[in-house]
Order: sequence, then structure tokens, then C-alpha cells
Amino acid sequence: MPANLEEKINIVKAAITSHPDFPKKGVIFRDIFGALLQPAAFAALRDVLVAHARQLSPRPDAVVALDARGFLFGPLIALELGVPLVPVRKRGKLPGAVRSVQYQLEYGQDTFEMQDGSISKGQNVLIVDDLLATGGTMSAACQLVSEAGGTVLGCLVIIELAELGGRQKVPAPVTTLLEF
Amino acid sequence: MPANLEEKINIVKAAITSHPDFPKKGVIFRDIFGALLQPAAFAALRDVLVAHARQLSPRPDAVVALDARGFLFGPLIALELGVPLVPVRKRGKLPGAVRSVQYQLEYGQDTFEMQDGSISKGQNVLIVDDLLATGGTMSAACQLVSEAGGTVLGCLVIIELAELGGRQKVPAPVTTLLEF
Repeated sequence: MPANLEEKINIVKAAITSHPDFPKKGVIFRDIFGALLQPAAFAALRDVLVAHARQLSPRPDAVVALDARGFLFGPLIALELGVPLVPVRKRGKLPGAVRSVQYQLEYGQDTFEMQDGSISKGQNVLIVDDLLATGGTMSAACQLVSEAGGTVLGCLVIIELAELGGRQKVPAPVTTLLEF
Repeated sequence: MPANLEEKINIVKAAITSHPDFPKKGVIFRDIFGALLQPAAFAALRDVLVAHARQLSPRPDAVVALDARGFLFGPLIALELGVPLVPVRKRGKLPGAVRSVQYQLEYGQDTFEMQDGSISKGQNVLIVDDLLATGGTMSAACQLVSEAGGTVLGCLVIIELAELGGRQKVPAPVTTLLEF
């Protein structure tokens, strides 16, 4: 990695705050919002996200952002690359004809949806979210892209809870920007 | 408005799709996601949002973005202005100490939260969301900013459902980018 990018990653890491026992006991929550409160850290984060997307080969034809925190970052990449930004949302939030896929939660299940026609056959797609935990939502997003005829080039997250093994469930390469 | 901005607004409007009877019969849902799928329209939308924020006086010290669709747009403005991006989220989604406010829904009520320390006393704040409907969530966000000691310079939305009269409930100036 270029020294310049490594420096930016360190700026972002220093701005991320940690909350022990959130959302439940024993979990350390790394709060990405801390970085958004510091303009220099947020700009550094944007630069690192965009640099990652730019070096992908083939070039992404579309960026998929996952509701809700992926919405904070996906647009920055899509605008910089000049490609469509495609939202994936929970059931009932998207108008028009949608494609749905169910995924497992810790207790029960939930549904992700993508609007028909938002991904075209043969498009290479980058999926963006803030966090990879169990991999359930990321896998569901991959499935939506594949069913629409797209190819998932990769999944880009800022933070990964590696001990949950989510990466093994995701049927595409996962890149994590920050290691803790 | 400069001719250049008016042209960009027309590009955005042309990209917004309409869904009759969503989320319920009799409502025409204007789908902002249509504009995000067209890179030129999304870039035009960003430019118009940023131009609005830049001409505010005094200059915003922070941008507040409302969960979830405000997350798509708030960061673009905050990064361009070089000011903090502050998220407002539904109950239980933000770690650490938070300030809460309840607001009315059509049936029942919900809670919005903002992290303590994310707005400083005396800061001038711009609140950003995609849509103004009944004004309930926007008013709640204004209250959170005021209680933290900030001043709401204005509320910026892309689309307004003017017939719902939400603007009258919001205790700050509301600017709508697109008229339908």
C-alpha cells in the first residue's frame, strides 16, 4: 500500500471510538461515526475508499450500498467513479418492482430488496458497507446482484469483526480497510 | 438561481421516477433513487445540494443527516464544506451516551437519537434529509440540535410533499430543491 494511503488509514483509525459492551455485553463496538465528526478523518476515509475502488480490475460498473450505514459511504465512491449507486434496503422500503432475498439473523430472519433494473446483466459490481459481522447481510446482497445477472467484483467494508467468521460465508472477495 | 444550477435541477428532476400508490393508495411516491442510478444526475444533485449549503450565512459548522436516506446526501455536503457529519438515528442504533426525542407517527410514536458531544454549543447546523412529509422527523431533529445548544440554520430536503403541511411544523427554515 502507498505510504500516503497508510497514513490516511491511520488518521481514520485514530478517529474511531470504541464502546465496550455495545450492543451487548462482551462486544466492543468500533464507532465509525467518530470518524465522520472529524472532517480530516472523513476526507481521509473517502480517499481510501475511492483508492480501493479505483484499483479494482475490471473497473466497477456500479456500486451497491447497504441500508443504512453503507449509504454514508457508497455514494462517495459511486460519484467519484461516475457509476450508478444502487441501494439495497429492508423489505417494503423500495418502491416499484423489486427482487427479494431472505437472510438469517441471530434470532429469526429478515429480507433485503433491490429494485428491478438497477443492475444490468454482465455488470461488475462493488458492494459497500461499514461493517462485516456475521456476513448475513453481505451474502444476501451478493445473491441479489448475482440473481440480477451482475458479477460481484468484491465487497468493501471499513471494519470487520473477524472473530465472527463472516468472510467465509460471503461468496466474493472481502476487503477490510481497518484492522483492529 | 444561476442558470447553471437551474439546468442541474432539471437534470435531477428528469431522472426521478414516480410510483403511483406507494407506500399506499393515492400517494405518488417520487423515487429519488432513480437519480442515483444516473451518474450525471447524481453529480448534478450533489452540486445543487453543495451550492445551497455554500450560500448559507452564517456558514454551517456541522451537517446533520437523518437515518436512512439522509445518509446518502449529508456526507456529500459535509465533506465539501469540511465540517462534521452528525447522524441522527432511530432508538438503539447509536452507541455511547445519546440524547433522545420522541415524535409522532401516523399510528404511534418513534424515537430519534443523537450522540452526546456531536453538536457543540453555539454551532450553526444544517439538517439534511431526502424528503419532507409530515415534518415529524425533521422537527425531532431540530429539537435534538437545539437541546444540544446548536442553532438550526435550515433544513434542506430534495422533495417536499407540500400537501401534508410539514413545513409549518418545523421550527426552522425549510428549503426544497425540487418542486413537483
